[in-house]
Amino acid sequence: MTLKTNSIKINTSKKFEIIDITSKINELIEINEGLISIFSKHSTSAIVVNENESGLLKDIEFSLDNLISDKYSYNHDRIDNNARSHLKSFLLSSSECLPIKNSKLDLGTWQSVFFIELDGPRSNRTITLTMVGE
Amino acid sequence: MTLKTNSIKINTSKKFEIIDITSKINELIEINEGLISIFSKHSTSAIVVNENESGLLKDIEFSLDNLISDKYSYNHDRIDNNARSHLKSFLLSSSECLPIKNSKLDLGTWQSVFFIELDGPRSNRTITLTMVGE
Amino acid sequence: MTLKTNSIKINTSKKFEIIDITSKINELIEINEGLISIFSKHSTSAIVVNENESGLLKDIEFSLDNLISDKYSYNHDRIDNNARSHLKSFLLSSSECLPIKNSKLDLGTWQSVFFIELDGPRSNRTITLTMVGE
Repeated sequence: MTLKTNSIKINTSKKFEIIDITSKINELIEINEGLISIFSKHSTSAIVVNENESGLLKDIEFSLDNLISDKYSYNHDRIDNNARSHLKSFLLSSSECLPIKNSKLDLGTWQSVFFIELDGPRSNRTITLTMVGE
Repeated sequence: MTLKTNSIKINTSKKFEIIDITSKINELIEINEGLISIFSKHSTSAIVVNENESGLLKDIEFSLDNLISDKYSYNHDRIDNNARSHLKSFLLSSSECLPIKNSKLDLGTWQSVFFIELDGPRSNRTITLTMVGE
Repeated sequence: MTLKTNSIKINTSKKFEIIDITSKINELIEINEGLISIFSKHSTSAIVVNENESGLLKDIEFSLDNLISDKYSYNHDRIDNNARSHLKSFLLSSSECLPIKNSKLDLGTWQSVFFIELDGPRSNRTITLTMVGE
């Protein structure tokens, strides 16, 4: 059993952006089989697993906007004008813990790992990778 | 420290179905104490932990239908008529990482692990189990 | 590689309460680097990572109340009058799996780990910590 760690840095260019990080993660995997924690160090972003289809990614943006409506006034906006970005992140999650097999993420045919920027554009978004296995 | 892996295959029979997989997982646990990642290899399903009470399971279906409304037209439906199934999966999660103690899931009294089918019926839904511990 | 386990007990004092458990977790970390699973053994609570800003915490309560509306009648309320507490827990998650570095949670500047009480007040809420690493 061994422990390996690494990280990914991402610059985003829009307020809302979904970035497929599957191949970047695969390049950084240093164990053959085990677990990987993929964790975003930011509270206005998310890590999710779903299908990389352009129409679906638009539907995800639309659904998040619907769920955390802009018709309310939020307390956090008095401090920092990004309450909805935090609330969307909160509703999703900042991490995923996934299986590794044959030195790759062991995903299904229609699955990709996404970093979701909810309050961009930002530089140096950091995603931590922690691998445990053999 | 050791690594053990296994998987569960499930056939579902309805569009929406919540299946308690707690005892199936417990049968396949091969370590005494540690962690288990429970991961569904499908982007129209989810893995969640909550109480197995029949009324609550109906409330979960109702709430998901409410949150991802059928009153909108979704882009992904032009490709594959299951946008809402993906969006519900996205809102929940395809994995859970849980503690193991005494060779069983170390759950609370009112907790079960569920596989949620969001786009059935399907055959051979695959859930990956990855255990790390002693 | 080593496995360490511990737990946190919390008494809550309100129906809805967000409690920052970051420093409690850090006190109980017994490895230098690796992974920690933080798991609440209750199906009317949640573990989440976000920013500890008082306005935002109010927005989180408001958003959850909005998403799981009190204008419907829920089946689970016939058994136990806390369906909405379960449904909010289900929408969030009862666990997080996070990285450890230098014997602390390796969080970003604006991140804290929260236990969310959704059906309090309760005594002896139990959060399990399972650490794997070096």
